[in-house]
Amino acid sequence: MTYFEQHRGEYLDDLKAFLRIPSISTDPDHKGDIRRAAEFALDMLKKAGMQNTHLIEGEGNPLVYGEWVGAPGKPTLLLYGHYDVQPADPLEEWLSPPFEPQIRNDNIYARGAVDDKGQTVILIKAVEGLMKQHGRLPVNVKFLLEGEEEMGGEHIESFVKTKPPLLASDAAVICDTEMFAPEMPTLCIGLRGLVYGEIHVQGARQDLHSGVYGGAAPNPIQALAEIITTLKDKDGRIHIPGFYDRVVAPDPKEKEAWARLPFDEAEYLEKEIGAKSLTGEPGFDVFERTWARPTFEVHGIRGGFTGEGAKTVIPAKAVAKISTRLVADQRADEAIAQVSAAVAAACPKGVTVEFKLIHKAEPSLVNPDNHFIQVSAEAMKQSFGRETVYIRSGGSIPIVGVFLESLGIPSVMMGFGLPDDNLHAPNEKFHLPNFYRGIEAVAKYLEMLGGVALTR
Amino acid sequence: MTYFEQHRGEYLDDLKAFLRIPSISTDPDHKGDIRRAAEFALDMLKKAGMQNTHLIEGEGNPLVYGEWVGAPGKPTLLLYGHYDVQPADPLEEWLSPPFEPQIRNDNIYARGAVDDKGQTVILIKAVEGLMKQHGRLPVNVKFLLEGEEEMGGEHIESFVKTKPPLLASDAAVICDTEMFAPEMPTLCIGLRGLVYGEIHVQGARQDLHSGVYGGAAPNPIQALAEIITTLKDKDGRIHIPGFYDRVVAPDPKEKEAWARLPFDEAEYLEKEIGAKSLTGEPGFDVFERTWARPTFEVHGIRGGFTGEGAKTVIPAKAVAKISTRLVADQRADEAIAQVSAAVAAACPKGVTVEFKLIHKAEPSLVNPDNHFIQVSAEAMKQSFGRETVYIRSGGSIPIVGVFLESLGIPSVMMGFGLPDDNLHAPNEKFHLPNFYRGIEAVAKYLEMLGGVALTR
Repeated sequence: MTYFEQHRGEYLDDLKAFLRIPSISTDPDHKGDIRRAAEFALDMLKKAGMQNTHLIEGEGNPLVYGEWVGAPGKPTLLLYGHYDVQPADPLEEWLSPPFEPQIRNDNIYARGAVDDKGQTVILIKAVEGLMKQHGRLPVNVKFLLEGEEEMGGEHIESFVKTKPPLLASDAAVICDTEMFAPEMPTLCIGLRGLVYGEIHVQGARQDLHSGVYGGAAPNPIQALAEIITTLKDKDGRIHIPGFYDRVVAPDPKEKEAWARLPFDEAEYLEKEIGAKSLTGEPGFDVFERTWARPTFEVHGIRGGFTGEGAKTVIPAKAVAKISTRLVADQRADEAIAQVSAAVAAACPKGVTVEFKLIHKAEPSLVNPDNHFIQVSAEAMKQSFGRETVYIRSGGSIPIVGVFLESLGIPSVMMGFGLPDDNLHAPNEKFHLPNFYRGIEAVAKYLEMLGGVALTR
Repeated sequence: MTYFEQHRGEYLDDLKAFLRIPSISTDPDHKGDIRRAAEFALDMLKKAGMQNTHLIEGEGNPLVYGEWVGAPGKPTLLLYGHYDVQPADPLEEWLSPPFEPQIRNDNIYARGAVDDKGQTVILIKAVEGLMKQHGRLPVNVKFLLEGEEEMGGEHIESFVKTKPPLLASDAAVICDTEMFAPEMPTLCIGLRGLVYGEIHVQGARQDLHSGVYGGAAPNPIQALAEIITTLKDKDGRIHIPGFYDRVVAPDPKEKEAWARLPFDEAEYLEKEIGAKSLTGEPGFDVFERTWARPTFEVHGIRGGFTGEGAKTVIPAKAVAKISTRLVADQRADEAIAQVSAAVAAACPKGVTVEFKLIHKAEPSLVNPDNHFIQVSAEAMKQSFGRETVYIRSGGSIPIVGVFLESLGIPSVMMGFGLPDDNLHAPNEKFHLPNFYRGIEAVAKYLEMLGGVALTR
């Protein structure tokens, strides 16, 4: 039995204790829990033998820092995770309480189990295991854990953007993605960017009676529907001038690799989505539509009377939350300008419209030939006993773009979640064999990167 | 000083007491106030010398009945009003509390002042004044007051539809509309009908992460926007097959009369609506668009995440409250079928849609040559000292259609509100000179209809 196998019980205990802290960043009532979670993570770093451990305070929730830089001449990795979690509602749909971790069928169920406490613990325990066995590491590491990932907070970005010497490193390792399928070691090499904001439409000065004014007064909900359907047509094609100009098609080799991934579209529709049919741009398959094509999506809409029964009002205003997902080589700032202009141009008669940005993230795409990627793929392959596949993710991890832009480093996204882990949903879970193998895979990665396979 | 002038103080006292009862029918917390208001109205009828006064109980709020039928051979009028009121919110916008009537500049401010307690009191006091002066009336009258007008309740309709002999009469008089302008006696001869319901759209089984599924999963808000813009285009033209087929254009004489009404479109836009510009079907003026053309209007919309900040969700469902206003000779049931079919036909890929009817009302249009209308116009002219104008209303008074269909009687809509009375809005008021003149005009109407100008 290896060292890592011997210590699984401790790792699980620490994970459980971490999961019991309801560190919901979007809810101000949980400010105290956010701090408890940050301090808990800091303690884990200390226990792992990290030095210079401290909380980095600033606007928003603290960053957690710790390093071991005793391997001069060896690569330095920036290890990223986050200690905040999504809200747990709707609570009634959880089979066990979200902040009382419960193990069922080799899975641990709790809010944050996979996103991202479990995966953050993987990074920490991999480093701890090597330190405990050898008193040193094969490479230099710098942990940077944040507490605002689920709320789109800016603390980590504003800190990284100051390019602090503290963070100088050769590559980032991000443990916040998932495997394509069970037993299939996966590296995510592309992420979509994001422009998220609100479209506000104002019609009359005040709500109007639809009997008296209906037919002559502008209706902001109708106008908002008009704007939304102008920006994206019913075939899923986006009509924002210039929006597709920079979109790079995946190269044929990458598409061939995707074609080899195990994927059943009917099962995807039935099991994951549960709608009448899929939608999206004609001429692109599901991988392209969700990984390599930009989107326009409405996340929420509100206007007028929505209570029980009938109220014959023409509301004065309406608002929609919308986003566009961006792909390489789109630029967030350019997309913001394009969306703003398209919204303004689509504004129907009688109303005024405003686009208010909430936040943004750059898309990213790493060359799979990159050394840090190649070694990671090999380490994963050895740990899982199976060839590593390269995928992209349709989601956005804003910090990846910031690491590239401000620190000049690529990000290696080693993810150990599974597609059915219920991220952001009730009954979030983490498959425990992946938790343990993740720790071993990351440890192996550090060893291989250091060029020295330390004996255990 | 006439009898009616001498008793203005009493009329005002009764109106104030009536207005102090917060008989909000849409709010179940006010059930007790609804009953108090019904009993208050019943007492006023008794005081006015009505016989057979009683509450008609049934599903919903009681109807208030009272009659005087001691004039055989003379016409019988069914006098309609309602004792329930709209909710008062937003409370902070009222200059004086909504249920503590206050007089400022010859106006009485309170919820229900004009809609419809003030106008209901007009009918009662006109009858009371004649009874007190002469011990009898020149015609037969039957009061039928309801308490569900503002909630779209069905009690009065289901009662009238049984065609009870109690209600046998020659014409209805409805005191629930407004004058076109101050000092301008007005008869409303047309009302729009209504089909009000909800469009429910369902996409995926549950909310989805827009990063993971965006591009391939259906978005019910997008679909709802698509349906809404399919049903009405950006020029205001409705695309519901068959919808315009029965629409009767106003005759040239009626349009000429409208053209003579004092109306300044720029002022209407600026003072009443306060939007950037008017909207609506090209080729029709404001009177036609609001009185003689059907509409499609969205009253409320809701779907997905609408809280503070950003949540990247593709919601599972979205819902909109919509209505169509109908004009003569459209039929509500036919319109319901047309709307349902159009909604189903507009349903985009990937989602399911359902139209759920909430309520309906038939449009109505009375021939201005009708005897009861002609006499009413003359009575108003004599009371106000100015020619009576004929208008229509864009709103719906469902009971008018039911009176016609079930009792075979036309409705005479003598309205004494003013356009700036803030119906359904904060600071609702009633102009007291119109209150007093309304009482006199209705009394004169009864006298003229009876063919005997009783001396006062």
